Amino acid sequence: VELLEEKIRREGKIFEGDVLKVDGFVNHRIDVAFMSEMGKELARRFAGESVTKILTIEASGIGVACVAALQFPGVPPVVFAKKSASKNMSGDVYASEVFSYTRGRKYDIMVSKEHLSADDKVLIIDDFLAKGSALPSLIHVCEQAGAQIVGAGILIEKAYQCGGDLVRKEKGIRVESLARIASMDPQKGIEFC
Amino acid sequence: VELLEEKIRREGKIFEGDVLKVDGFVNHRIDVAFMSEMGKELARRFAGESVTKILTIEASGIGVACVAALQFPGVPPVVFAKKSASKNMSGDVYASEVFSYTRGRKYDIMVSKEHLSADDKVLIIDDFLAKGSALPSLIHVCEQAGAQIVGAGILIEKAYQCGGDLVRKEKGIRVESLARIASMDPQKGIEFC
Repeated sequence: VELLEEKIRREGKIFEGDVLKVDGFVNHRIDVAFMSEMGKELARRFAGESVTKILTIEASGIGVACVAALQFPGVPPVVFAKKSASKNMSGDVYASEVFSYTRGRKYDIMVSKEHLSADDKVLIIDDFLAKGSALPSLIHVCEQAGAQIVGAGILIEKAYQCGGDLVRKEKGIRVESLARIASMDPQKGIEFC
Repeated sequence: VELLEEKIRREGKIFEGDVLKVDGFVNHRIDVAFMSEMGKELARRFAGESVTKILTIEASGIGVACVAALQFPGVPPVVFAKKSASKNMSGDVYASEVFSYTRGRKYDIMVSKEHLSADDKVLIIDDFLAKGSALPSLIHVCEQAGAQIVGAGILIEKAYQCGGDLVRKEKGIRVESLARIASMDPQKGIEFC
């Protein structure tokens, strides 16, 4: 966790409009060795939960989720929700809507019914948790499938936004974020919780 | 390799229009333990090449590439090219155009200049190689960066199409495909080379 905070301080770039860019190790270039350490920490936090499936969303979530999966007992498969700009979805899928503040528009996410079921104990893994992130929609997808949600493992949470607390309090779901940002500003830098 | 051919025979679904769906272990649900074995085989084939970077493309390529990266000496970082529907790309990127036969349209791929340079020895990893796959464009991106291309590691090649041979012969680039399909048909099934 301290490693991650250090890495965000050193390599993250803060822009106006509440934007944190971590393209250098998460969102474009993936520091796989480092992700493996993050995966170990997530596996430690969710030890004993007998996760049968890891659910994430394309594209940046896939790397974190796959590398983390290798650290969990039995190496659970990763299912990644697909993004679609339209409602043109084929056949048997669970779908949910996300509003992206970054892009200023809605998009749908979908998961094939074939790959998520009521027998699953699901850990959701994603890179970011903030206002308008995909987590509530991934939870919605699990609910549609009747799958049990073990919790959510997140790399970076903007803790000054409501995204995480809504899930923790309203849904009663365990959310473990490896770095929780208390505040950030292009001039003053970044503070962690 | 035999494991992969077996898995494609057992879990792959062939549809009219030359479509092979491997959603159950590559393109939607990722069999991470299995991918790890595939990664070991790629690392064995490219042993001694001192790869400094693995280049892939979102979304399905990311899982294969990250899990494979863990099997290479020094765990090279993975850079994934981004897809963009328009020419509205920001600043300093290498870009190239792909024509997707599946979607019937062109799209751009881009890699930030920050994350690929002339110092890199690049291994390109992707899930599919066929006519109209992203490999030639990923090569084009490396050429723009002046990076050395060690080769390409592919999960599944449609060897009856020209995609792979164009790269091997015209570009002189080493392409290792773990499964090479000689023919496939919804009725007759699948034959490997």
